Amino acid sequence: MVIHMGQPKKTRNLEKTRGLILSVTFLEVFKHGFQGVSIDDIVEKTKLTKGALYHQFPTKLDLGYALVDEVIKPMIIDRWITPLAQFENPIEGILTQMQKLIGDIDSKQLRLGCPLNNLVQEMAPIDAGFRKRLQAALHLWIAETDLQLQRAKKNGYLKAKIDTRAAAHFIVMAHEGFFGIIKGLDKDSAFTGMFNSLKSYFQMISV
Amino acid sequence: MVIHMGQPKKTRNLEKTRGLILSVTFLEVFKHGFQGVSIDDIVEKTKLTKGALYHQFPTKLDLGYALVDEVIKPMIIDRWITPLAQFENPIEGILTQMQKLIGDIDSKQLRLGCPLNNLVQEMAPIDAGFRKRLQAALHLWIAETDLQLQRAKKNGYLKAKIDTRAAAHFIVMAHEGFFGIIKGLDKDSAFTGMFNSLKSYFQMISV
Repeated sequence: MVIHMGQPKKTRNLEKTRGLILSVTFLEVFKHGFQGVSIDDIVEKTKLTKGALYHQFPTKLDLGYALVDEVIKPMIIDRWITPLAQFENPIEGILTQMQKLIGDIDSKQLRLGCPLNNLVQEMAPIDAGFRKRLQAALHLWIAETDLQLQRAKKNGYLKAKIDTRAAAHFIVMAHEGFFGIIKGLDKDSAFTGMFNSLKSYFQMISV
Repeated sequence: MVIHMGQPKKTRNLEKTRGLILSVTFLEVFKHGFQGVSIDDIVEKTKLTKGALYHQFPTKLDLGYALVDEVIKPMIIDRWITPLAQFENPIEGILTQMQKLIGDIDSKQLRLGCPLNNLVQEMAPIDAGFRKRLQAALHLWIAETDLQLQRAKKNGYLKAKIDTRAAAHFIVMAHEGFFGIIKGLDKDSAFTGMFNSLKSYFQMISV
């Protein structure tokens, strides 16, 4: 939500309001699921009027779609892609990020799952608009991870024969799969073993 | 649901009714989620009276808990553990079952996900009774897979240094992770690559 100095005040305020609504929506949906949150909940938490909210998001679905496009997609870039790009060896980056984003997180918070995975599980099967946007978010994540794996191959860290696109699918699956199963297990007994198994996979594909 | 010849008729009828209610509940919850199904939906589909249903399941939660304990747990045994036990090499069995249970399934049906994974995602974070039962189901699955991996090790198919419990967690995570991510992706573009990556992992841990 970059605010440009030259923008008229009204546009700046609209952008600020939009950002506030989306931040509140993100947290409420993360805790209760999309179907577990009402527009009234959002209005109450933002302290805005219903009119101010409806002005930007005429329906609850519009708000949900914007949540995927304007919050979750940028999170994929900020929390995954940008950090990976800092590593000389992206494979090391992937393991570091998984430790940081899952292994180091408090069990209680982890029980809420991954915001993207939760929406995929809840909304992709029942709403075509969500499905289209969630699919685009997953494809972005997979495509960017693929680019990092291609860089790993170019830098001599990954075996030449590895299909980077298939590996990118597998890595994103594992990230979401870790989050998904930890929701049903006690994290501390589950993470380390799964993480070590994932390391065996990386050992297999690394040079 | 074994019906013993010596049982009084009333007991047999109760068991039959219970089986019918649970079968209908399974399909409805699979399609719509636990929160998306009402007791009235189940009553209508079973053609029973509300009283007959409440006699066996005083609350919707009782019905949900029985669904995990009496339908989903036995499915883990029938669809995973028993088939694996038929393979001289359980690793080969795991790959065969994943191909059969995921790779060979029609995209449209696959979009509904895995019945156990769906309930974990939906109910584990919000209800302690579900969490306890879903955790027990996952632990059963992991423990039985662990036993198969121990057998693989004993038969000389798995490297001696492999932590079979960690590997069992990873395999169950991958099974649920495949189902989970395919809900958000086009199956045909995703399955084969992920499956080949999983094969690389198995190559690493196999003798």
